[in-house]
Amino acid sequence: MGSEVSVLGMGSMGAALAGAFLAAGHGTTVWNRTPGKTEAPAARGAAVARTAVEAVAASPLTVICVSTYDAVLEVLEPVSGALKGRAVVNLTSGPPGDGRQTAVWAGRCGAGYLDGVVMSTPGRIGDPGALLLYGGPRAVFDAHCSVLGALGDPVHVAEDPGLPSVYDTALLGLMWGTLTGWLHSTAIVGADSGGGVSATAFTDVARRWMNTVGVFMNDCARQVDSGSAAGGDFPLDLHLMTMDILVHASELRGIDPEFPELLRGLVRKAVADGHGAESYARLIGYLRKR
Amino acid sequence: MGSEVSVLGMGSMGAALAGAFLAAGHGTTVWNRTPGKTEAPAARGAAVARTAVEAVAASPLTVICVSTYDAVLEVLEPVSGALKGRAVVNLTSGPPGDGRQTAVWAGRCGAGYLDGVVMSTPGRIGDPGALLLYGGPRAVFDAHCSVLGALGDPVHVAEDPGLPSVYDTALLGLMWGTLTGWLHSTAIVGADSGGGVSATAFTDVARRWMNTVGVFMNDCARQVDSGSAAGGDFPLDLHLMTMDILVHASELRGIDPEFPELLRGLVRKAVADGHGAESYARLIGYLRKR
Ligand SMILES: NC(=O)c1ccc[n+]([C@@H]2O[C@H](COP(=O)([O-])OP(=O)(O)OC[C@H]3O[C@@H](n4cnc5c(N)ncnc54)[C@H](OP(=O)(O)O)[C@@H]3O)[C@@H](O)[C@H]2O)c1
Ligand SMILES: NC(=O)c1ccc[n+]([C@@H]2O[C@H](COP(=O)([O-])OP(=O)(O)OC[C@H]3O[C@@H](n4cnc5c(N)ncnc54)[C@H](OP(=O)(O)O)[C@@H]3O)[C@@H](O)[C@H]2O)c1
Repeated sequence: MGSEVSVLGMGSMGAALAGAFLAAGHGTTVWNRTPGKTEAPAARGAAVARTAVEAVAASPLTVICVSTYDAVLEVLEPVSGALKGRAVVNLTSGPPGDGRQTAVWAGRCGAGYLDGVVMSTPGRIGDPGALLLYGGPRAVFDAHCSVLGALGDPVHVAEDPGLPSVYDTALLGLMWGTLTGWLHSTAIVGADSGGGVSATAFTDVARRWMNTVGVFMNDCARQVDSGSAAGGDFPLDLHLMTMDILVHASELRGIDPEFPELLRGLVRKAVADGHGAESYARLIGYLRKR
Repeated sequence: MGSEVSVLGMGSMGAALAGAFLAAGHGTTVWNRTPGKTEAPAARGAAVARTAVEAVAASPLTVICVSTYDAVLEVLEPVSGALKGRAVVNLTSGPPGDGRQTAVWAGRCGAGYLDGVVMSTPGRIGDPGALLLYGGPRAVFDAHCSVLGALGDPVHVAEDPGLPSVYDTALLGLMWGTLTGWLHSTAIVGADSGGGVSATAFTDVARRWMNTVGVFMNDCARQVDSGSAAGGDFPLDLHLMTMDILVHASELRGIDPEFPELLRGLVRKAVADGHGAESYARLIGYLRKR
């Protein structure tokens, strides 16, 4: 048995990963603790390994995606002798510390180790827009980037194998802020007296608008990094004035104003402290408590 | 004097609008209450009208962008006799009712009227990604869409001339949700014990991630419109579990957890009501108070 990549764990995510490798034409070996789950990938051309050690030995690159880091060690510890000189990419979710510990352990086994996070549901794996983040030695990433590219958009975020997990949490936070803002706004346009706008019609415009929001993000990011916060065309005073309109528009339509009120509260504090002519980037100081 | 478009009001925004028309090669006539401000566009090839009526008479299309709707009427009422058969596009910001009233008034003058909002700062006018929204008769929009395209990405949102203003408020709400989520997440990755990540490095990944968030938005939008909320791969139970991780990650790094706590509070309510297997779209019912 000689293949390009082996996948350990045929749960929902593992099966999607193996499916994407197969769809991209990569020779793939699969293994799962419970045998039945390897039938579907086998029907699509995967080689089935009877043991984890057989799977690891079959390919230069092994991807593991099981429930938890405890399960990862349960699978990998017995096969540690086979890991030397091979690459292991762990796409199991867990806290940053677990990724760092596993990296140390894998290093002792002589394996090249990347810890990764899958920022996608299984259904979108293989789509070029699905985001997968990796942390660990850049050289290991570079060596396997083209095979990993079959899963989606591969990004090496850091040498630190704990960082993908931190990004995971942070990116989900960004998603919730965005989705909740979007839901609130969808409720507002849907309840307008001029005739409700459907969520899909609003979202078509909202997605175009996100380009502009992305430009603001970039501008703010540069300011956060440089410690400056020049307000320019859109100072906090103007944000506050238009936030009042949003809170009022919510109340007028019977939409809970709690979400915009919290956002306004932050801006109000900064304006009260004399930062009204500065930019949104100034607010980061109010989020950092210490 | 015969030109393609006339611009009334040479404030920061009006001057940017005239500049974009000129840059796109459209014959442009400009007017401003206070004379000095027409010098810059004149130097770039604009014809200068001495009076508003002269400006309106010069082009089939007049764009007006002044401080307030009161100012719009102060400018347009004296020239009402010249409006018949012409198109007026009003890009002044104001509440939805003002747009609707001005549309009725313009209709009585025999003008084709669009009310619009500029979802951009003056500096980005003319960029193909700058979003401008228009409400009013589709036929008026279609007749002038190609000239208006010089300003950015033109979108006709509705026949209702009050709706662009509602979109304006709603899109800003989406922006604040996104920017605040982004700031919070930037604070988290910047404070990580594994070595702080710069805001620009995080934002590079965040912008790629926004593609996936956009896909979620579309999925949620379809659910909101159909009244369904099947949780699929990412039910509220899983959101709640990962939100706990975000709140914890915030506290661990000394970042104010108020923002993720508010988001979690919404999800908690829905889960407590038995909607844990449903999707984020279910939350819209919690924002609509009545
Ligand atoms: N599903 C998603 O949307 C998604 C998204 C992003 C990240 N993730 C992450 O991806 C990982 C896998 O998720 P999933 O959805 O694929 O889970 P799943 O469908 O529940 O599958 C779990 C997999 O882990 C295996 N496993 C569990 N304990 C094991 C052990 N002690 N020894 C060997 N194998 C063990 C299971 O094997 P058996 O068949 O033998 O039980 C199964 O293959 C998780 O860390 C999850 O957080 C999932
Ligand atoms: N700037 C932005 O970032 C931005 C973004 C989106 C939307 N907007 C909206 O665009 C509109 C214009 O904003 P701006 O930034 O261009 O404002 P601005 O720089 O303050 O300019 C105001 C303009 O309105 C004119 N004006 C005011 N009252 C008038 C009256 N009674 N009669 C005739 N002209 C009058 C002024 O003429 P004088 O020179 O004679 O005073 C000037 O040309 C506002 O509704 C604003 O909310 C602005």
